Amino acid sequence: MAKSSFQTLPGFRDFRPEDCSVRNYLFQTFRDVARRYGFSEYETPIVEATELYLKKSGGELGTQLFRFEDQGGRDITLRPEVTASLGRLLVDCQRDYPKPMRWFEIGQCFRYEKPQAGRTREFYQFNVDLLGETNPGADAELIALSIDLMRSLGFKQGDFVVRLSDRKYWQNFATDNGLDEEQTAELLQIVDKLERDKDGTFAKKLPNLGLTLEQVQAAINSPGQLSPDLEAVLANLNARGMRDDVEVDLSIVRGLAYYTGIVFEVFDSKKSMRAVSGGGRYDTLVSALSDGKVDLPAVGFAIGDVVIRNLIEQTPHALEKMQQSIAAQPTTDLFLIIADPQQEPNALKVAAELRSAGISISYPLSPTKFPKQFKMAEASGAPFALVIGSEFPELSLKNLSTREEEKFQYDESLSQTISTKLKQ
Amino acid sequence: MAKSSFQTLPGFRDFRPEDCSVRNYLFQTFRDVARRYGFSEYETPIVEATELYLKKSGGELGTQLFRFEDQGGRDITLRPEVTASLGRLLVDCQRDYPKPMRWFEIGQCFRYEKPQAGRTREFYQFNVDLLGETNPGADAELIALSIDLMRSLGFKQGDFVVRLSDRKYWQNFATDNGLDEEQTAELLQIVDKLERDKDGTFAKKLPNLGLTLEQVQAAINSPGQLSPDLEAVLANLNARGMRDDVEVDLSIVRGLAYYTGIVFEVFDSKKSMRAVSGGGRYDTLVSALSDGKVDLPAVGFAIGDVVIRNLIEQTPHALEKMQQSIAAQPTTDLFLIIADPQQEPNALKVAAELRSAGISISYPLSPTKFPKQFKMAEASGAPFALVIGSEFPELSLKNLSTREEEKFQYDESLSQTISTKLKQ
Repeated sequence: MAKSSFQTLPGFRDFRPEDCSVRNYLFQTFRDVARRYGFSEYETPIVEATELYLKKSGGELGTQLFRFEDQGGRDITLRPEVTASLGRLLVDCQRDYPKPMRWFEIGQCFRYEKPQAGRTREFYQFNVDLLGETNPGADAELIALSIDLMRSLGFKQGDFVVRLSDRKYWQNFATDNGLDEEQTAELLQIVDKLERDKDGTFAKKLPNLGLTLEQVQAAINSPGQLSPDLEAVLANLNARGMRDDVEVDLSIVRGLAYYTGIVFEVFDSKKSMRAVSGGGRYDTLVSALSDGKVDLPAVGFAIGDVVIRNLIEQTPHALEKMQQSIAAQPTTDLFLIIADPQQEPNALKVAAELRSAGISISYPLSPTKFPKQFKMAEASGAPFALVIGSEFPELSLKNLSTREEEKFQYDESLSQTISTKLKQ
Repeated sequence: MAKSSFQTLPGFRDFRPEDCSVRNYLFQTFRDVARRYGFSEYETPIVEATELYLKKSGGELGTQLFRFEDQGGRDITLRPEVTASLGRLLVDCQRDYPKPMRWFEIGQCFRYEKPQAGRTREFYQFNVDLLGETNPGADAELIALSIDLMRSLGFKQGDFVVRLSDRKYWQNFATDNGLDEEQTAELLQIVDKLERDKDGTFAKKLPNLGLTLEQVQAAINSPGQLSPDLEAVLANLNARGMRDDVEVDLSIVRGLAYYTGIVFEVFDSKKSMRAVSGGGRYDTLVSALSDGKVDLPAVGFAIGDVVIRNLIEQTPHALEKMQQSIAAQPTTDLFLIIADPQQEPNALKVAAELRSAGISISYPLSPTKFPKQFKMAEASGAPFALVIGSEFPELSLKNLSTREEEKFQYDESLSQTISTKLKQ
């Protein structure tokens, strides 16, 4: 078997056509859902000044950067996430847009992690942000969008659950236990890891904060009265018929440093995988990036393409929906068979006309024997073949699944005739 | 004016929503045209081992790399172009696909050049490749696609010209003049630069090859008998009604090292800008990447987003087509006005129903005074507002341009009613 002396870098992916159509199905679904919620698409660069990420993303990300010096001596980094760039952009341009702003983005991010199942070194992320609104109605709108996205991808109630939490609860818990700002950040990092902390690496750090694992677990399991924000979000989702997709779960805090209020994560209902998606409120990021000059409260949501693709492939009805959607858009509508090489100029003319009408056409690019052309037609995936032979302007249209054949004359109604056949 | 302490890196772009819709119009047109020609989309990583580019891209690119070492000590590079990656991928997977293969890709590339008009450090490139076919019918098919792309972007005959050439002509010229392989490569680099060589930097190098500028200019201006490949391409395009968009011009050789035969570039008809797009035959790249184990002749075409966007903006009928296409897809179809705050749960229910039917809905996320809600509705760009007040289930649909208002009762046919209104 021939092998290139070159390979993709570890954790990076080639998308062959069969993978690219899966990627594009995800992207199309992301865009459809964002549009239904009135969001506009934007994009920021894949490379930014490193300082942007060191200062604002926080958490583990600082150790996972693809970071380097460019030819001009700049310290630059492949983006590990998009929100820091969005914040940077908003400082400069938010005044040009009425509030609240509904913005989304689909782009690639890069993290130098150990490649493993569900974890690559590059991934696409769909980021959705609602900017300039403090009311929990904004948080609820984004959570509703995240639920609608799961439904649009073919998941049913019970396949997934939104775990809803509030960082303010942990802020209050930290204050009650006398923690300062840095200790509070450390507590949040520990709580974020507890669920998968099999060997107790993170639980062990609690005594340094003057806390016990029992105290923290009691705080998770017996939260008492919910905050007004959580109550408002639940009532809002209830009005949309989405209450049953959500459970309050204060063990969720999210990894990034900039969240300030409501946070949520979407999991498969067995919670057997990493979070599929998540988000939350970050009211101070834009202010921090502008040295306090711009105050723009915000709530955001993000989903990567790797975990959701795995979950779709493990969920038969979601997989079936995806496969049907992809099959409904064949690459080629019609394969031209040039039965008489003398007719090639007429075949090219016919191809140009049909393509002008939006029909997708393929044909043999060099003289090819008739039976081989039929095989090519079948391999192309086209539902129909159009045979152009010495009897031109007589043409023969062949349905490649039923083998039915129909003869007609070439005239100016050709593209109309073929379009009608394709829709049948 | 508030300014972020962070900026984009020089030569990198933010796409605010109004820019992103232009980008997406280009991408949609790229995909539509590729589909009409039966091409399947693929994608390769944005980062590859540097060696891939040093060995195979050649030309100036080697000095323009965003090149660095990753945390694992690998010498890696942000891709300056896509064809080297495609070649790498094809070595490993081409046996899985019937020939010829019709593949395309839309992705970002990075070159460390001095930023100037029409030249950024990142750009999106639409790459189209036909693989496994030596017949010039393949070259003609790609040139036809490049012409169809210009037409699909709203350009008319006379707005642009395809300049068609053949590297074999220069190979023969080099052989006739006793040049070796390295000298031939140098000659091609010089010919590529001659048209813009105002200060004679490149012409000055010809004597080193034992050539004069007059000799080279005579070879460009009086090519004599065209090669059979050029004749075949011209006849093929003539059959499609595209002959008048093409002129034979042997001054075109393309910058990259891997081209082996027919090459072409598309220019605005005043030739006032850089080439808009271009391509050509590269029959030996895949073989070189596989140490001769895989022989896959190929012809490719590429267009970047920066130059074509400039040309569209300078061409009134192309600009108008773009603006109409963008305006035909408003972000928001319908803005909900919640005239009575008590009705918010019903508004959320209505929003959920309409969104399920594919309608794009926005609404105020916090209690807002009635006149302000009308202003928000107008600012959203939605053609209609739906007013939900204390008379619910009575609803009022307001056309925001004509100010016409229509009252009706909420029932299960709501989404049907609204869909019909939106299509009018």
